[in-house]
Amino acid sequence: MDTAVFENHESEIRGYCRNYPTVFATASNARQVSEDGTSYIDFFGGAGVLNFGHNNPKMKEALIDFISNDGVAHSLDTYTTTKRDFVSKFQEVVLAPRGMDHKMQFMGPTGSNAVEAAMKLARRATGRREIVAFSHGFHGMTLGSLAATANHAFRQWAGVPLDNIIRLPFETAPGGDTAISEYREALLDTSSGLTAPAAFLVEPVQAEGGVNVASAEWLRSVQDLAREVGALLIFDDIQAGIGRTGSYFSFDGMDLDPDIITLAKGLGGFGTPIAMNLNKPEVDAHWSPGAHTGTFRGQGLSFVAGTVALDYFTDDSFTAEVTRKGKVMRERLEKIAAAHPDAGWEVRGKGMMQALDTMDGAVAKKVQQASFERGLLIGPCGQDGRVVKLIPPLTIPDDDLDAGLDLLEQAIEAAATTTVVA
Amino acid sequence: MDTAVFENHESEIRGYCRNYPTVFATASNARQVSEDGTSYIDFFGGAGVLNFGHNNPKMKEALIDFISNDGVAHSLDTYTTTKRDFVSKFQEVVLAPRGMDHKMQFMGPTGSNAVEAAMKLARRATGRREIVAFSHGFHGMTLGSLAATANHAFRQWAGVPLDNIIRLPFETAPGGDTAISEYREALLDTSSGLTAPAAFLVEPVQAEGGVNVASAEWLRSVQDLAREVGALLIFDDIQAGIGRTGSYFSFDGMDLDPDIITLAKGLGGFGTPIAMNLNKPEVDAHWSPGAHTGTFRGQGLSFVAGTVALDYFTDDSFTAEVTRKGKVMRERLEKIAAAHPDAGWEVRGKGMMQALDTMDGAVAKKVQQASFERGLLIGPCGQDGRVVKLIPPLTIPDDDLDAGLDLLEQAIEAAATTTVVA
Amino acid sequence: MDTAVFENHESEIRGYCRNYPTVFATASNARQVSEDGTSYIDFFGGAGVLNFGHNNPKMKEALIDFISNDGVAHSLDTYTTTKRDFVSKFQEVVLAPRGMDHKMQFMGPTGSNAVEAAMKLARRATGRREIVAFSHGFHGMTLGSLAATANHAFRQWAGVPLDNIIRLPFETAPGGDTAISEYREALLDTSSGLTAPAAFLVEPVQAEGGVNVASAEWLRSVQDLAREVGALLIFDDIQAGIGRTGSYFSFDGMDLDPDIITLAKGLGGFGTPIAMNLNKPEVDAHWSPGAHTGTFRGQGLSFVAGTVALDYFTDDSFTAEVTRKGKVMRERLEKIAAAHPDAGWEVRGKGMMQALDTMDGAVAKKVQQASFERGLLIGPCGQDGRVVKLIPPLTIPDDDLDAGLDLLEQAIEAAATTTVVA
Amino acid sequence: MDTAVFENHESEIRGYCRNYPTVFATASNARQVSEDGTSYIDFFGGAGVLNFGHNNPKMKEALIDFISNDGVAHSLDTYTTTKRDFVSKFQEVVLAPRGMDHKMQFMGPTGSNAVEAAMKLARRATGRREIVAFSHGFHGMTLGSLAATANHAFRQWAGVPLDNIIRLPFETAPGGDTAISEYREALLDTSSGLTAPAAFLVEPVQAEGGVNVASAEWLRSVQDLAREVGALLIFDDIQAGIGRTGSYFSFDGMDLDPDIITLAKGLGGFGTPIAMNLNKPEVDAHWSPGAHTGTFRGQGLSFVAGTVALDYFTDDSFTAEVTRKGKVMRERLEKIAAAHPDAGWEVRGKGMMQALDTMDGAVAKKVQQASFERGLLIGPCGQDGRVVKLIPPLTIPDDDLDAGLDLLEQAIEAAATTTVVA
Repeated sequence: MDTAVFENHESEIRGYCRNYPTVFATASNARQVSEDGTSYIDFFGGAGVLNFGHNNPKMKEALIDFISNDGVAHSLDTYTTTKRDFVSKFQEVVLAPRGMDHKMQFMGPTGSNAVEAAMKLARRATGRREIVAFSHGFHGMTLGSLAATANHAFRQWAGVPLDNIIRLPFETAPGGDTAISEYREALLDTSSGLTAPAAFLVEPVQAEGGVNVASAEWLRSVQDLAREVGALLIFDDIQAGIGRTGSYFSFDGMDLDPDIITLAKGLGGFGTPIAMNLNKPEVDAHWSPGAHTGTFRGQGLSFVAGTVALDYFTDDSFTAEVTRKGKVMRERLEKIAAAHPDAGWEVRGKGMMQALDTMDGAVAKKVQQASFERGLLIGPCGQDGRVVKLIPPLTIPDDDLDAGLDLLEQAIEAAATTTVVA
Repeated sequence: MDTAVFENHESEIRGYCRNYPTVFATASNARQVSEDGTSYIDFFGGAGVLNFGHNNPKMKEALIDFISNDGVAHSLDTYTTTKRDFVSKFQEVVLAPRGMDHKMQFMGPTGSNAVEAAMKLARRATGRREIVAFSHGFHGMTLGSLAATANHAFRQWAGVPLDNIIRLPFETAPGGDTAISEYREALLDTSSGLTAPAAFLVEPVQAEGGVNVASAEWLRSVQDLAREVGALLIFDDIQAGIGRTGSYFSFDGMDLDPDIITLAKGLGGFGTPIAMNLNKPEVDAHWSPGAHTGTFRGQGLSFVAGTVALDYFTDDSFTAEVTRKGKVMRERLEKIAAAHPDAGWEVRGKGMMQALDTMDGAVAKKVQQASFERGLLIGPCGQDGRVVKLIPPLTIPDDDLDAGLDLLEQAIEAAATTTVVA
Repeated sequence: MDTAVFENHESEIRGYCRNYPTVFATASNARQVSEDGTSYIDFFGGAGVLNFGHNNPKMKEALIDFISNDGVAHSLDTYTTTKRDFVSKFQEVVLAPRGMDHKMQFMGPTGSNAVEAAMKLARRATGRREIVAFSHGFHGMTLGSLAATANHAFRQWAGVPLDNIIRLPFETAPGGDTAISEYREALLDTSSGLTAPAAFLVEPVQAEGGVNVASAEWLRSVQDLAREVGALLIFDDIQAGIGRTGSYFSFDGMDLDPDIITLAKGLGGFGTPIAMNLNKPEVDAHWSPGAHTGTFRGQGLSFVAGTVALDYFTDDSFTAEVTRKGKVMRERLEKIAAAHPDAGWEVRGKGMMQALDTMDGAVAKKVQQASFERGLLIGPCGQDGRVVKLIPPLTIPDDDLDAGLDLLEQAIEAAATTTVVA
Repeated sequence: MDTAVFENHESEIRGYCRNYPTVFATASNARQVSEDGTSYIDFFGGAGVLNFGHNNPKMKEALIDFISNDGVAHSLDTYTTTKRDFVSKFQEVVLAPRGMDHKMQFMGPTGSNAVEAAMKLARRATGRREIVAFSHGFHGMTLGSLAATANHAFRQWAGVPLDNIIRLPFETAPGGDTAISEYREALLDTSSGLTAPAAFLVEPVQAEGGVNVASAEWLRSVQDLAREVGALLIFDDIQAGIGRTGSYFSFDGMDLDPDIITLAKGLGGFGTPIAMNLNKPEVDAHWSPGAHTGTFRGQGLSFVAGTVALDYFTDDSFTAEVTRKGKVMRERLEKIAAAHPDAGWEVRGKGMMQALDTMDGAVAKKVQQASFERGLLIGPCGQDGRVVKLIPPLTIPDDDLDAGLDLLEQAIEAAATTTVVA
């Protein structure tokens, strides 16, 4: 396969292609096929985008129909019939059943942009400057969202100070059990050097940060503190939302009431870009028209496929399937971990985001490589890349899921053996 | 037309829909048709994205073919055959003929993200912090690019200080004629309070800032100073590039040699998102793999349509047409301005980005409204929105162009009359 | 007494004069006498400056001699015989006996300036930006030292962001027992969002912050962490040093080894300004000549009186007296607290800095007022000013000390009664 | 002379002692005498502090009397009879004759602290963040004032970004003639990237910056712009005030009306520290009690000697003498410059601050060394230290002034010769 054109003309920054040294030609549901005909099972899911599989048939049909009929592909924030369908259906399928009256805000179609917009709105609505973000949090790469991102590997590239963020440990990090109550005491102490923040920005399930699942109790303690000190609660559900954890939002059913929810990744269904924030009306009212713009904030193709994606949530059958498959994943990982009792491996996750924390980036890297060699795509994440994260399409057939888990198990055995030898 | 769903459920931030109070249903080349059948001539071009028209037929065909055949729509920065076609053709059509050996970097698919990446790279490559940006410059809405954006209407929403930018007047702004030489003297003076910047970030043609066209001499003086003080030269060609001004880059033929060029908007051809920076190899070498990521940095549909778009630049026939139509636009605007000698109106532009500076935001707003009422879409820009900017698709048929200019002329007469009366 | 000239022509910012509404005419040891002849016992000691009493007789004699003989009163950092005497004696009396080889650095003669210099040096020596400071810490009013100061009442006046500080709870604040170990874990975690700081800036005894005394164990844990992560340890001993706590440094005998010690207040002995940092040689070597200047950094009168002050530390008799008197103060405060078992009052302190935390700023204010009415000067401090701090001259005669404590006891009874009534 | 104690125990940061390698023992008026009996003529004046000579006899007498009688040496901002004398006399001698109703604010006794306080007050009074400062400006070493200081040699030591300052060229710097008008145009342009500042901070005569004298016209243009955009005008008269330029304030008689004036250096008369801001009442009203504190803000000795110093300004005889001696200095420097027509030397100054700009730091350094060898103390300043600045005590006898100028002339000839040879 010819990769010279990339090596000669693409930036040195390219990353995943180094882990998956092949050239993909086609993709369908949970399979990606390379130019030489090798078929890979996809447990990576486009970094959490492809919840409904590659080239979802219903979306293909809808997109081809849309393009054939000269639908408005690019509309900024003008009104289009396509966008109306999406907004209308999102209201009907997601918001109304939950009694939510949040306003939908579209912006530049990246998760990073969604977070930037949320931070602006929280700062404007409160007149405050600092935002609380958490260890192991991942929120994006642009300067505002990068300040909230915790990983030093990304932060070091800013080239300028990353300020206006208060960093607290996430529930599952050292000190995480007491951080919220201690921070509360400090905020109430006028000699603590702290003043009330504009917002708490939290991922109910940290994905890139290593698949860390917050408890309902902890999230409610964050929400309670936000309410007490007049700060907003922002949930970044960009990777964990849109059905990934077995419910539409990752925090469904927890009796939580965020002021802003950031969404992107799986929202467009097909892998085309879109980002959307849900803002409570009284918060949203702080915006003026055009306050935060973005050229690609009206994407017809993403509206079309995203509308199809919402069909998966009109009843509980799909999310029930996600929960069922998630258990299959979880059980296999626990079996694997149990087979290596001395390794200190830990299994974590929710729904179809399940992970094995190998506690060692080198081990996880070997697992990834051994998986690729066997025809399985996975992506490590977390501190030093030590966590093997599984986020296959939610639509993955049982056969592919089982086959993928078999390959993973083999790869882990091979990696573990190699590691021992080395 | 039903707009209640937007009014009830979409954010108050929505903007263009207030200028164009209709619901668009379809679009083709330079025409957008609303739900009620009204056909609008499009002189707005999706804010500079739709250089090749809405639903460009060759792109439609290529996209439908790509989708039908399960092409890889979402690939992050793995290798795909589709991406290889794009990279290869961009090298062949754009870089090679110009003797450029820049590396192509893909990132989150917004212009803002491209600028953020360029700023990071410049800061890393030089070990410096401050970046020179210019009055009336527009570079994006995320915290890093927003710091470089000049317009107070956008800056006020940051909620935090926008630092690490040195602001100089653009060539056409007050003081712009001497600013570069004075800044040079200050940099050479160790008691000036200034130290050398990481980069000069400049739009060769400012679009959002009011259609301000820099001269080759001035751009060379910026480049010379950058070289002298060890700073990088970054050209933001996001709106003016991709053929808009009558050549692929807006600065072609000026004997200029930028270290980084940021591209987005028209690059994907069809209106689907993509962004790409061109980095000189010695600058690009400062990146490490994965240093600046972005979920949507590998967009199959944008690669496919973007490859088709490059066909327009394999010879000079298309750019010659752009130049010809640009003259038609220019002459009409000059005629209009000449008809109002006392108004102090000014005509500015290059290629098919032409503008009438009415010197008064209220006038431009009336022109926009009067145009819309007559079936013409335009968008004001510049200081206080006083500049009527025309950026129709480059592929606009002559009939539509003439008809659009007629409508514009009528709208301006109507607006001028109204203004006088009022 | 005529105070109109102040009310008419002095700034509204004046503060202590509002607590002590009189005009002082003379002062001697622990007594200040107002224009109308009222004699006040001074438990305030010039906010910790007048450790050796007002108009210490030996210092008076030395100063008059110095002035009479045309000594060099103002010398910047040129060499003078007077400065040589001071440096030489400080080396002999303070550094040599402790085996310290720190270098003495003189700067603008305020504690704030000493802290600013220490922060610069730590940042330069480590190449890092952030400095850890603690809740309830007080380090000064200029922008750098103010960033390290915790009290919101002062911080709110900056008018610009106070950045580049990591805030941790002091040992005695909520969360203080685990903060250092949790911070350590976060620093070792590359996904925590934190990177190693340039320094830990800590007062071994917080004075303004409410008389909070750190334990040797906790200070050693801070020192250990600083060493482990390559950060400097800066002790701000500006108010607690120079004998106040019963030893020259407040941390003597704790087996601690700070890289930088900041001194000011009592160092000059007579109340004339001087500030000095003690920098370890390997840290001090990072300075270049003139890197941090200050017009008043060579004060002959402060050198002269400061040299006399060092006589108090040539043997242990003076510090033994301080310890003895401190116990007298402590016992009286404990007796007072014991008399109000339901009030939750707490007695804290070390040596002759002893305090009663009334847990209520309004109570402490009343105590201050009732004391003044009875002829006793005290100054509240700490969160909301709720802590009654006693810092009389170390040279206070036993009679005055006892008389002052009697007045305090009466004032507290009066204030407590008033409070109950109100 | 023994300097080992300094070399062994004082910080490497010490500076002037390297230029003046001797140990001073006594000083009187414009003479400093070293331990070995060498008498030096002082054209350096303690960096602008000793306007009334070393050990001014009337001040000596007043100080000895004050100390002998147990005056309150250290008072923070309590009222003392001594302070009342000073405030009262300052009002009578300085403010009343000028029709000024500014309030006197005392703070930590350094010029840097005065500037920090002025910046805080301006930011609070306007609710704005940025302050305009000028190239070659010198305002201090603490983080806030250092941000306003222009010289890179000092700025590089901050270790953190120095933000919230807008830098404009001073009148005499390149671009200085048009900077104010261009900045005005930019402020009025909402797309310039600039918003109105809190204040303009300017030295009417830049001392450390190289003895640059602003014209009344230029200063009025700054004042006009400040008024127009709602910013405060802050004059830093720390080195040029208190009679130095032939009038009490350096800007007397120019029809200027600053909102805040910062004073320090010569204000205390004897060389003991004091700093004071003059705030217009409506500006001062923004302070709350204790908003900006400082331990040494009430200095009895400085009040006493400073009151004596005010006697020099009760009529015009003293300032007339300053003007006369200034002319003597000016003429000699012009004669010297005229003797080296090819060197491009420039003479600048006002009153008794006169300077020779040698355009070359190495030349000025040689002049300083050759002067010292001949018994004359001078200090270079300005860009790269190329400006020989003469600021002798205003009370210097004519004989010493002439003798000093003779020594200077000889030193310059020697230095010029050496330079040619080398």
